[in-house]
Amino acid sequence: MGTESIEFWYEFASPYSWIAAERIERLAAEAGVDFRWRPFLIGPILRQRPHNPSPTQDASPAQKIYRRRDVERLCAREGLALHWPTAYPRNGLLAARVAQTLGDAARRAFSLAVFRANFVRDGEISNMAVIAGLLEEMGRDVAADLARAQAPENKAALAAAVDEAIGKGIFGAPRFVIGTELFWGNDRLEQAVDWARAPWL
Amino acid sequence: MGTESIEFWYEFASPYSWIAAERIERLAAEAGVDFRWRPFLIGPILRQRPHNPSPTQDASPAQKIYRRRDVERLCAREGLALHWPTAYPRNGLLAARVAQTLGDAARRAFSLAVFRANFVRDGEISNMAVIAGLLEEMGRDVAADLARAQAPENKAALAAAVDEAIGKGIFGAPRFVIGTELFWGNDRLEQAVDWARAPWL
Repeated sequence: MGTESIEFWYEFASPYSWIAAERIERLAAEAGVDFRWRPFLIGPILRQRPHNPSPTQDASPAQKIYRRRDVERLCAREGLALHWPTAYPRNGLLAARVAQTLGDAARRAFSLAVFRANFVRDGEISNMAVIAGLLEEMGRDVAADLARAQAPENKAALAAAVDEAIGKGIFGAPRFVIGTELFWGNDRLEQAVDWARAPWL
Repeated sequence: MGTESIEFWYEFASPYSWIAAERIERLAAEAGVDFRWRPFLIGPILRQRPHNPSPTQDASPAQKIYRRRDVERLCAREGLALHWPTAYPRNGLLAARVAQTLGDAARRAFSLAVFRANFVRDGEISNMAVIAGLLEEMGRDVAADLARAQAPENKAALAAAVDEAIGKGIFGAPRFVIGTELFWGNDRLEQAVDWARAPWL
């Protein structure tokens, strides 16, 4: 098959990134499509918005109410045990740096663990002890992983990933990328998978 | 069946409203769900955004490129003959006023005609001659419809519809409303239909 792999760009603060991350495993297996997990940060991209240079979305009250209800409905439909984070959005910088250092399989497992800490167990994922606990549960060498995560070259690698995302035209998470084709949002995951198998345009 | 009807709130400038309008007929028939078509204007709502009191979305260049490609892909998938409007977004005020005056069946037919004028035939829907032409094709009394559309009480009725939308928490189009439950976007249409038949939360 000529199926291309799909880049999955995700932000740990984003509930829609979490829902997509949970759904990807099943869809990848069913469709025979391969996903490359690409952690990044949406804050530096939001800060570039022409009319609102803020690193968070600054949603209106109506938007905040809608988003939470939408996520609750989606999770109920997907059988995901959402506990809406008491701090939202949480800072995913440390988690993204750790994810950036890990190889493919460990990155996927760690990233799912971070999402579940944030959205199921209401864990403060910006806290180093919380991240260390997740690595420990995975049987990782925690001190080594954290040291690598915070080394200057890894910080630069994550910053380069954000620049790469901007270069690709990414302005929100999650994003599915196949060559130059972008699909934005958990609700475009099926289309991305279909496109990877057979582009229709 | 205890199925509730779904309010379909739409804006004539919005390509996602158009795609939803085209899909609703088939879904309504398949699901046995009834839609009430509610024209409104998104400009006065965008103008209330805390950080950007502009009546248009002011999307970034990357967002504009993405939106157009997303709409092109969706239309190709749905078999809709999109011609991206050479003026975008077009002002839907006059069309919304006319739609507001019409009864249910005529409103639906007229609204689909306006959407197709805007997104298939690249017609300037803010132009009265264009709107008059659509009414004429429907066999309407054009002068009477236009006079009613621009009567003060109808202008007030459309303004009241916008206020009603704001009161319901609507901040984007299209929107599907079932009681207090809101679904935002063409990509939530199937969920809205499922919810109308059997809420899952």
